[in-house]
Amino acid sequence: MSIPTGAQGLPGLAYPEASLKRLSIELTEKYAGTFGAETVHRYVLESYTALLRTAKVRSHLLAQTTHFVNERLTAVAQAAGAAAHDLPEILYVCEQNAGRSQMAAAITTHLAAGRVHVRSAGSVPADRLHPAVVTVLAEVGIPLEDAYPKPLTDDVVQAADVVVTMGCGDACPLYPGKRYEDWSLADPSTLDLDGVRSVRDEIIGHVEGLLASLERRHSAV
Amino acid sequence: MSIPTGAQGLPGLAYPEASLKRLSIELTEKYAGTFGAETVHRYVLESYTALLRTAKVRSHLLAQTTHFVNERLTAVAQAAGAAAHDLPEILYVCEQNAGRSQMAAAITTHLAAGRVHVRSAGSVPADRLHPAVVTVLAEVGIPLEDAYPKPLTDDVVQAADVVVTMGCGDACPLYPGKRYEDWSLADPSTLDLDGVRSVRDEIIGHVEGLLASLERRHSAV
Repeated sequence: MSIPTGAQGLPGLAYPEASLKRLSIELTEKYAGTFGAETVHRYVLESYTALLRTAKVRSHLLAQTTHFVNERLTAVAQAAGAAAHDLPEILYVCEQNAGRSQMAAAITTHLAAGRVHVRSAGSVPADRLHPAVVTVLAEVGIPLEDAYPKPLTDDVVQAADVVVTMGCGDACPLYPGKRYEDWSLADPSTLDLDGVRSVRDEIIGHVEGLLASLERRHSAV
Repeated sequence: MSIPTGAQGLPGLAYPEASLKRLSIELTEKYAGTFGAETVHRYVLESYTALLRTAKVRSHLLAQTTHFVNERLTAVAQAAGAAAHDLPEILYVCEQNAGRSQMAAAITTHLAAGRVHVRSAGSVPADRLHPAVVTVLAEVGIPLEDAYPKPLTDDVVQAADVVVTMGCGDACPLYPGKRYEDWSLADPSTLDLDGVRSVRDEIIGHVEGLLASLERRHSAV
């Protein structure tokens, strides 16, 4: 039984102290003038713990933490007016952030080709992406390799212009001044591959509609 | 269909903006000199969103948010050396924070009678406490009315002297310098009332052992 350095009693994944500290220092430099070192360090540790809680695959935990913290800090900065908010921000929320919201985010990024910025989250994040979802997106040429389930946090809701929920009902705080939509879609975890393809195609239809309406709104301004 | 004030599109629970703002102001005064208003406000909104995500019963969400934020801010302050840390801090972690870790926390608070401070959390918090757990603790005169499932956050791990995990394996970051224990206990959600009583009695035995060992350690110093 191997005991992790410095921790008494329980074997397990040693806490990657040096890497997280390095990440905190890097991000403190990146966000200098917007956030203090203490805030950045808190965000790094909180985000790491939040992902560690549910992730089964741990090999990319550090890369995922880096991405998650960056998204969250950028969101806080945007909501506070301290970072650019030039593109419409869309947030997709489902229960597990393993199927529907991940497909919607990847499809939107693909179809919008730089005209919007997209985030996704789950009310009860799963331990990994649904393999079938990765498969059916690969079939239409959309990669999902770097995607990972993550919990819904306040910061990304605050930064969103449009929040789309899918089967997680009222797990998302409703802030004034945002556009909220609820898309009714079957849960991919209950479907066979053809069923997941249908959900993918439904999502493509929804996303095209959403992008067209944002386009109209933008050109009307 | 009623639309919440200011939010377009989706009906649901309106965001209690005024109450959360009031809570932020109160806590900013309480923690003056330790945390800035911005940090406190972030903690309030994050904690509210985290509880909203999984809670089904919403009637106590504000009281629970108040308690959760206070616990978290105190934990950060303790870990940073800015708040008193006179008593041993014990953290119980299970998967749902609905059964085992809630029983352990309540039993410890009861038996320790002020000699330790206790927190509990879950890697995947449930939407409510197991009713059977509330019942079997009431039988031995321990109330659980105000308890609620909450996610494991980095701050409470940092502040802990002893972390006890129960069936959530490696979902908890292992920090150096802490004592870690893992208690093997059956999951109350799979048991009848007599089974839950057995788990309760097992936990009482474990807690008595833990408190005795902390006592010995303290008197040895």
